[in-house]
Amino acid sequence: MTIPSEMKALLLVGDGYTKMPSGGVLEAMEPYLGLGSIAVPTPGSTQVLIKVSLASINPSDVAFIKGQYGQPRAKGQPAGFEGLGTVVATGDDPYAKSLAGKRVAFATGLTNWGSWAEYAVAEAAACIPLLDTVRDEDGAAMIVNPLTALAMFDIVKQEGEKAFVMTAGASQLCKLIIGLAKEAGLRPIVTVRRDDQIGLLKELGAAHVLNEKADDFKAALREVMKAEQPRIFLDAVTGPLASAIFDAMPKRSRWIIYGRLDTDATIIREPGQLIFQHKHIEGFWLSEWMRQSGDRRGLAILEAQKRFSDGRWATDVTAVLPLAESMARVPAELAKPNGKVFIRP
Amino acid sequence: MTIPSEMKALLLVGDGYTKMPSGGVLEAMEPYLGLGSIAVPTPGSTQVLIKVSLASINPSDVAFIKGQYGQPRAKGQPAGFEGLGTVVATGDDPYAKSLAGKRVAFATGLTNWGSWAEYAVAEAAACIPLLDTVRDEDGAAMIVNPLTALAMFDIVKQEGEKAFVMTAGASQLCKLIIGLAKEAGLRPIVTVRRDDQIGLLKELGAAHVLNEKADDFKAALREVMKAEQPRIFLDAVTGPLASAIFDAMPKRSRWIIYGRLDTDATIIREPGQLIFQHKHIEGFWLSEWMRQSGDRRGLAILEAQKRFSDGRWATDVTAVLPLAESMARVPAELAKPNGKVFIRP
Repeated sequence: MTIPSEMKALLLVGDGYTKMPSGGVLEAMEPYLGLGSIAVPTPGSTQVLIKVSLASINPSDVAFIKGQYGQPRAKGQPAGFEGLGTVVATGDDPYAKSLAGKRVAFATGLTNWGSWAEYAVAEAAACIPLLDTVRDEDGAAMIVNPLTALAMFDIVKQEGEKAFVMTAGASQLCKLIIGLAKEAGLRPIVTVRRDDQIGLLKELGAAHVLNEKADDFKAALREVMKAEQPRIFLDAVTGPLASAIFDAMPKRSRWIIYGRLDTDATIIREPGQLIFQHKHIEGFWLSEWMRQSGDRRGLAILEAQKRFSDGRWATDVTAVLPLAESMARVPAELAKPNGKVFIRP
Repeated sequence: MTIPSEMKALLLVGDGYTKMPSGGVLEAMEPYLGLGSIAVPTPGSTQVLIKVSLASINPSDVAFIKGQYGQPRAKGQPAGFEGLGTVVATGDDPYAKSLAGKRVAFATGLTNWGSWAEYAVAEAAACIPLLDTVRDEDGAAMIVNPLTALAMFDIVKQEGEKAFVMTAGASQLCKLIIGLAKEAGLRPIVTVRRDDQIGLLKELGAAHVLNEKADDFKAALREVMKAEQPRIFLDAVTGPLASAIFDAMPKRSRWIIYGRLDTDATIIREPGQLIFQHKHIEGFWLSEWMRQSGDRRGLAILEAQKRFSDGRWATDVTAVLPLAESMARVPAELAKPNGKVFIRP
């Protein structure tokens, strides 16, 4: 296979971090990305070069291109944390070499060569050779959401809790966790922002779906917290909604923040609850979990592939956009609820 | 010894919790306490009756009488969490009986019969028979502050940190911890609100003393955090000051809240730090530690007695007030810096 010297990619406009955080909505592409040409990268010794066939767009990508994610932007480099493709060149490292020609899911967090491009470089250790039974759309979105879902659901199981709370309940990630909870007989309590999401999520296995925009939200929240006594709170939103939920939770609750969709101030309403009720506030980051999870990581990868293969999990697809149309179409497609947007380079 | 049927005591005016938290300053006694007569209590089987000779006033007492501490007020009962006295009657339990006639330090958190009274009831397990070498003033203030100091300093040592941060640096509690840190070669960074406290605290062993009211506080804070990289933050204040300190601390920092002297909103400035920098927010409560600390509790009690006996620790006394003068004089004496106020029933 001939590898060209140049490729098309969505390149970062900004550098480092923003000084003006602006929430989780992608209002337009132009302030953050431009479609351009760049040299095809050469993989380092422990890396592989991937011909990208499908790249996913996650909330963490939006935060990253806006300069409000946990790692700085490198101006002029391709964006995109996750994708699927075929390994077309490798470094000298034996494990990297062993991936040659394989169809892999990959994550680019460690290389600065994003997936929203015709070619991407990933660490071999951040590639997952896929079973043939895994669909492309599932493989392209197999790392960020599914592994986060399995890792965070582990926390719920380890605490031995029956009920737990999640914000952004209609996200792909939460839907995966709701499915896991249903199988295990646990009771997810989730918040959404539209009534039309309630039925679907209940069908998937949510015990309670609360519309945070409803007039009776506060009363409903208090009632559900009292009845279910959830002690784990997986939070993608922060801000006043998350503050109110944590405040209403019982003794020994853990507020685990993994996203920041609301940039309004996040207030600890009653710091006395941390003293007298032994409540905690902490965070979850998949990269950190990957470094520290040991054997659990390999098991989670296998588990995700099995679930996508046998149909217990399936990625809802909102749109698959050609790279050339991405600048114009991504924001509108992302604004649609209930599914995932992909780029096909 | 004849025990009377009635006694004088400072009795709680309010019941349960307040709806209007108002900070750590005691502006007046009358809204919260009244001097009155009440029946001398009878100890239960695991309890003892103590003729109180000296009772201390801690910040937690002020929070409690105002209805903003972790346990509800019982209207008409005596206040006061801590004191010193002689056991004059006991329940049937063998350990309670063994304390008869002894001079003890005691804590009343479990009985609702406070120390600001001529007689108090305490659980025998919450009494510490004192060595003769411990002064009354030290014994009367030996549980709340000294054990909290030893317990929280344990956290610093367990983390293996060289530098750590404390707010309310001029409190009796912080002074005890500064002394412990100096002996261990650690570097406390403390905040105060008056320049005249800086010299004294540096002499005791503080590596840095920052005046939160100074114009250059923010710059000084950033500089010290960068140089010292402290990862433990023992916080009695919360509010904007604590938020700013936590925000400036490095990766993997723990914000441990044990008091709430500022009732302004406590904001998590950058929730992303909890995700990407593995920062945590938690609380510390001595009662919880007492329940869970096992052997460490007995060792800490012995350690405190030794330190007060050999002069490494000494309680600074601002005033010792007769019970009859307490209503009029406590607020003004408490407002003085650098020492402890006692009530002598």
